[in-house]
Amino acid sequence: MTPPHSLSELYPRVQQFYADQVHALDSRQFDVYAGTFTEDGEFRHTPGRPPARTRRGIADELSAFHRERFGDEPVQRRHWFGMLRLDQRPDGEIHSTFYALVVTTRPGVRVPEIAPSCVVHDVLVENAGRLLLRSRWVEHDWQPEGAAAPAGGASAHTTDEREVEVGAPLR
Amino acid sequence: MTPPHSLSELYPRVQQFYADQVHALDSRQFDVYAGTFTEDGEFRHTPGRPPARTRRGIADELSAFHRERFGDEPVQRRHWFGMLRLDQRPDGEIHSTFYALVVTTRPGVRVPEIAPSCVVHDVLVENAGRLLLRSRWVEHDWQPEGAAAPAGGASAHTTDEREVEVGAPLR
Amino acid sequence: MTPPHSLSELYPRVQQFYADQVHALDSRQFDVYAGTFTEDGEFRHTPGRPPARTRRGIADELSAFHRERFGDEPVQRRHWFGMLRLDQRPDGEIHSTFYALVVTTRPGVRVPEIAPSCVVHDVLVENAGRLLLRSRWVEHDWQPEGAAAPAGGASAHTTDEREVEVGAPLR
Repeated sequence: MTPPHSLSELYPRVQQFYADQVHALDSRQFDVYAGTFTEDGEFRHTPGRPPARTRRGIADELSAFHRERFGDEPVQRRHWFGMLRLDQRPDGEIHSTFYALVVTTRPGVRVPEIAPSCVVHDVLVENAGRLLLRSRWVEHDWQPEGAAAPAGGASAHTTDEREVEVGAPLR
Repeated sequence: MTPPHSLSELYPRVQQFYADQVHALDSRQFDVYAGTFTEDGEFRHTPGRPPARTRRGIADELSAFHRERFGDEPVQRRHWFGMLRLDQRPDGEIHSTFYALVVTTRPGVRVPEIAPSCVVHDVLVENAGRLLLRSRWVEHDWQPEGAAAPAGGASAHTTDEREVEVGAPLR
Repeated sequence: MTPPHSLSELYPRVQQFYADQVHALDSRQFDVYAGTFTEDGEFRHTPGRPPARTRRGIADELSAFHRERFGDEPVQRRHWFGMLRLDQRPDGEIHSTFYALVVTTRPGVRVPEIAPSCVVHDVLVENAGRLLLRSRWVEHDWQPEGAAAPAGGASAHTTDEREVEVGAPLR
């Protein structure tokens, strides 16, 4: 049983969790990034690619993706997350939905590319006092997946289905 | 009488409020967006357009604006808010000022347009434990309004006029 | 001795500190910006320019930089900070690392320039209940400085060197 957290406690904690996570990702510490998932975690980051599973699988998928996409190019990527919505469930899961932009800079080129725009659906759990990602599903705005549910789709769309009462008291 | 909130409580709560609000807006749930205003709320979103008033008026204005601007184009917009400043007033009003960017993606086009850059002036109130917007005024950086005060301008500029003592303790 | 803060208290407080700071900066209130540093604060904002020191020196450097860069152009800049990581040290220093983007709008031009992408390394201290910057070092992604340590580099890289255990409990 995980006790519910106040939004005051949870919100900055999740913001810091994401900051730690993307600083690792953008430094190409793929093992550290994968270590932010549960052992059996699932990660769907690009439409058309099968989901990666387990920490080992997630780290391998990220290495492969970067190699295919950038080869030896010394690009610096920066993942920005924003407009974070958190929803604590009675079973202790934390459903998190937020916007993401990827900023990519090439050495000597002052103006970065900012693309794509995404919305990310996470399921977080707490394990021995640590936050971990059970699943992450990234939707790309330019490649709408429509009504297609992700494989093992329990983690998808859930935050969109909740009754929204914007501005309600903390829960 | 609304009791004052600590910044620890208020800041994440307002961030979540805005996240819920823009996720609704960007899903074109204009009624949900309008429902984040007080019944007599006022919304000035674009220079040269008269302010919309009341929830009904705000929802109608958003529908009209989207129809004129995008017609049947299947664009996906994402509103990003950042650099949020909160100022609690003795009367319980919360004055909020922040930056905004609008990210617009068209299907099949990977790189979104990011424009315009804005600064937003909100007045929030708490009603039966719920945050609601009493007024929102959006300034567009590319169309400076100069010294022109908005109609019923009590809500405008106020956060800029306060004595800034950056880094002061919570209040 | 500064007591350690909970992340719940510290994180929103630093976010508000940065918001206050950049609203001042983007309004060209360089004295207010400089006043967010300690009296002997150090500010390195652009590769190749020597660090500015003391509040007077920082305000002067900003005035000079803006004059050189923009002259009388009526540009509106907006500094966006994101993906904030905070690390409290036993001696009371708060090491803060975050991403930054500069959004620059020219009157009449709807689409702003968004550049450069940066990562910022701050050292914050608390003085008489107020947060102040002891040092700020801005790395520009398009001009990698490599292994070159900044002058008086105690403040640099430190947050990257800490043992990252993402999602660990508050400390």
